Amino acid sequence: MQITDDYFPGAKNVETPAVVIDEGRLSANLSRMRAIVPDHIALVPHVKTHKCLEIATRQLREGASGFTASKPGEAAVFIKAGVAPVLIAYPLIRAQTIKGLIAAGVQAGVAVRFIADSKVGVQALSDASSASTTRPIEVFIKIDVGLHRCGIDAESEVLLELANSIIEEGNLRFGGLLSHAGHAYGAASPDAVRAVAAQELQLLRKARLRLEAEGIAVPGLSVGSTPTLLSNAGFDGVTEVRPGNYVFLDMTAVRLGIAARSDIALAVVASVVSCNDRYAIIDAGSKVLSSDLGAHGTAANTTFGEAWQLDGEECFDVVRLSEEHGFLDAPGQVLSPGDKVLIFPNHACPVANLAKELTLLSSDLPQTLRVDARAATR
Amino acid sequence: MQITDDYFPGAKNVETPAVVIDEGRLSANLSRMRAIVPDHIALVPHVKTHKCLEIATRQLREGASGFTASKPGEAAVFIKAGVAPVLIAYPLIRAQTIKGLIAAGVQAGVAVRFIADSKVGVQALSDASSASTTRPIEVFIKIDVGLHRCGIDAESEVLLELANSIIEEGNLRFGGLLSHAGHAYGAASPDAVRAVAAQELQLLRKARLRLEAEGIAVPGLSVGSTPTLLSNAGFDGVTEVRPGNYVFLDMTAVRLGIAARSDIALAVVASVVSCNDRYAIIDAGSKVLSSDLGAHGTAANTTFGEAWQLDGEECFDVVRLSEEHGFLDAPGQVLSPGDKVLIFPNHACPVANLAKELTLLSSDLPQTLRVDARAATR
Repeated sequence: MQITDDYFPGAKNVETPAVVIDEGRLSANLSRMRAIVPDHIALVPHVKTHKCLEIATRQLREGASGFTASKPGEAAVFIKAGVAPVLIAYPLIRAQTIKGLIAAGVQAGVAVRFIADSKVGVQALSDASSASTTRPIEVFIKIDVGLHRCGIDAESEVLLELANSIIEEGNLRFGGLLSHAGHAYGAASPDAVRAVAAQELQLLRKARLRLEAEGIAVPGLSVGSTPTLLSNAGFDGVTEVRPGNYVFLDMTAVRLGIAARSDIALAVVASVVSCNDRYAIIDAGSKVLSSDLGAHGTAANTTFGEAWQLDGEECFDVVRLSEEHGFLDAPGQVLSPGDKVLIFPNHACPVANLAKELTLLSSDLPQTLRVDARAATR
Repeated sequence: MQITDDYFPGAKNVETPAVVIDEGRLSANLSRMRAIVPDHIALVPHVKTHKCLEIATRQLREGASGFTASKPGEAAVFIKAGVAPVLIAYPLIRAQTIKGLIAAGVQAGVAVRFIADSKVGVQALSDASSASTTRPIEVFIKIDVGLHRCGIDAESEVLLELANSIIEEGNLRFGGLLSHAGHAYGAASPDAVRAVAAQELQLLRKARLRLEAEGIAVPGLSVGSTPTLLSNAGFDGVTEVRPGNYVFLDMTAVRLGIAARSDIALAVVASVVSCNDRYAIIDAGSKVLSSDLGAHGTAANTTFGEAWQLDGEECFDVVRLSEEHGFLDAPGQVLSPGDKVLIFPNHACPVANLAKELTLLSSDLPQTLRVDARAATR
C-alpha cells in the first residue's frame, strides 16, 4: 500500500506526533453504519471512541438519535451540549453522581438514561431520581452475553428480582435489556464475530421471554459493539444499537476482518528521530499510541501498530514502545531522522483519549478538533 | 499486607477512580534518592513520571538542582516555571522547536540543555541557537548503552565526528556524554540491574577515553534510570543523574527487587461496580491504569496490577482491562458493589499522565495536585 495524497491529505506537513483524522474516511464510516442499521432502530453511538463534540455532531447528521457514554464525566460533556439524549451504559452505584447527571439533563433539556445490574445500582438510581426530578428515569438491565464483565445472566433469578424492583420504584421506568458483546474482539474471523452477535440476540430474547412470562413488558433491546454490527446476525427484536469504534476503526478491526486498512480514519503521524542498526526510533510512544494490543485486553495483535512511510511504500512494525519513543523494526538504516510515517494503531479509542487534540485532514486546511471529554474517568 | 490508616490515609473516602499519592512515601522516596546520590553529583530528576510542578518543587527541596524532560511541551512547562535548569534528554531534530525552548529559557532565566545523536540533530541545534541567542547552548551526545533506542555506540566512528561538529559550532558547547540504561527494566534481579549499571559506566568511560585521546575534553557524564540508581554500581566519573520513577515506584520496581510494596507512593483507588462468579469489576480500566505491563515495553508482569482491599487484607490480581473497567480475579462474589480497593499499577508514569489530577493523601486534608504537563507530547 502507498499512502497517497488523498488518504490523510497533508499528513506530511503536520507537526509530530499528531493524531490525525481522515475526513473522507470518517464520513464513509458514518455512512456505512447508517446503511447497516435499519431505519426503525435507534443509532446511539458510544462517544468513548472520540470524546469530541464536533464528531458527535457529524454522527447526528448521519442518523444518530442520541449518544452512549461510559463514565459520568464523559456523559456530562455530551449532556451539557444539549443536542441529544445520553445513555450512560455503565453501572453507576453512587446516588450523588446520578443526581448530578439527572440535574444536568434537566438543565440542558435532554433525557438521560441509565443501566443497572445490581440491587445497589437500582437503589442508587431510586435515591437519586426521587430527590432530583418528578419524571421517572429510564433504566435498562444489563445482561451479560459472554464478556463476563458487567451484567447478569439471562437465566439468572436476579433478572426477575431486578426488573420488579425497578418497576416497583415510582421514580424509575424499566426501559428493557442492554448488552455489550465485547468478547467479539477476541474472535478470529467475521463469521466468528457473527456467531457472537447471534448468541447475543438469542440470550437477550431468552431474557425477554422470561420477563414477559411474568407479565413484565420489555420495551427495548439495546445492543452494540462495532464488530457485532459490521458483522451482524440481523436485528430481530433490537430497538437500539450503540457502536463506538466504527467512526475510526483500527488494526483490531482489520485483524477481525471487518475493515480494510483503507477504512481506518484515525492514525498517528510520527517522525523518525534516531536510527540504529536494528530500529528506527519515532517520536510517538505509549503516551501517544497507548500500550493496547487490542480491545478489552485481548492481546491478539503482536505489535503496537503499523507504520507506513509517507514518502515511500514500505511498512514497518511498531515492535516496542517507551513512553515517548516507538521502535520501528527497520534494520539497516533504511529510514533517516526527519522521515515521517503514518501509524495505524491497534486500538483507536485510547489514542484519542491520550491526545490533546485531533487534526482533521481533508482537501481543505487542517482543522483542530478538541477532545472535549478527555480523561473524564469519573 | 493490610492497607492500614497511615498508608494512603483517607483513601477510602475519595471519589473513585482516583490517582492518589501517599505524601509520607513520596517524601521517603525523595530522601532515599538524595541519600544515594553523592553530594558532588547533580541530581536532575526526570519530570515525565509526575509532570507536576508541586512535586518538582519538593524534588528541589530534596537535593535536585534541575530537571530532565522528554518532550518539548513537557520541558516548556518546567522551563516557564523558571525555578531550575531543564535538560531535554530527547533527540530533537526540528530547529523551530529548539528555538522556542531556548527563547523560553532566556525569558524565564533558566538554562536549557539538549542532547544529540545525529548530524541532523546537531544541525538543528546549531540553526536554532544561532538565530535565538548569543550564548552557546550546551549539548550532550547520547550514547547507546544497551537499550538500542536512541544514542550512538561508544565505539562508533560517528562519536568523534559528532563531538567535533558540536565543538566546531560557535553556538554550541559540548557538555559531555549522556545515557539511559532503560534495558535495566528487563532485568531479573537487583544484581542483574547492577550489572547493567556497571556496563553503562564502562561504556561511557570508554567513549570518554576515545574522545580524550583525540584531545576532546568531556566535561560531564550523565546517567539515569531509577533501577540503575537504586541498585547502582557506584558513581565513578558520573557528574549527573536523572532518575524519574523513583518518586512513586510501582509493581515493576517491586518485581525488580529494588522496592517493597510499602515503598510505592502512587496508587489508584477504585470501587467495585459489578460482580459475577469469576470477577469483581472495578471503575478503573486502561484509561486510568494504562495497559503497560512494564516499562519500555517489557511485558514481564502478567497482570495489570495488584488490588488490595481497603476494608480487609485480601489482594486481587487485575487480570484484564477494558477502557473503563478492570477485572479483578475474585471468584465466588467475595467482593460487593461499593467495596473499594487500592491498586498498585505496573508502571506509575503513564498512570499520572492519564490523570486529570493527583490526590495527595496525608494526615491533613487531601490536596489536589494538577498534572501540569499532561499529554504534552510535542
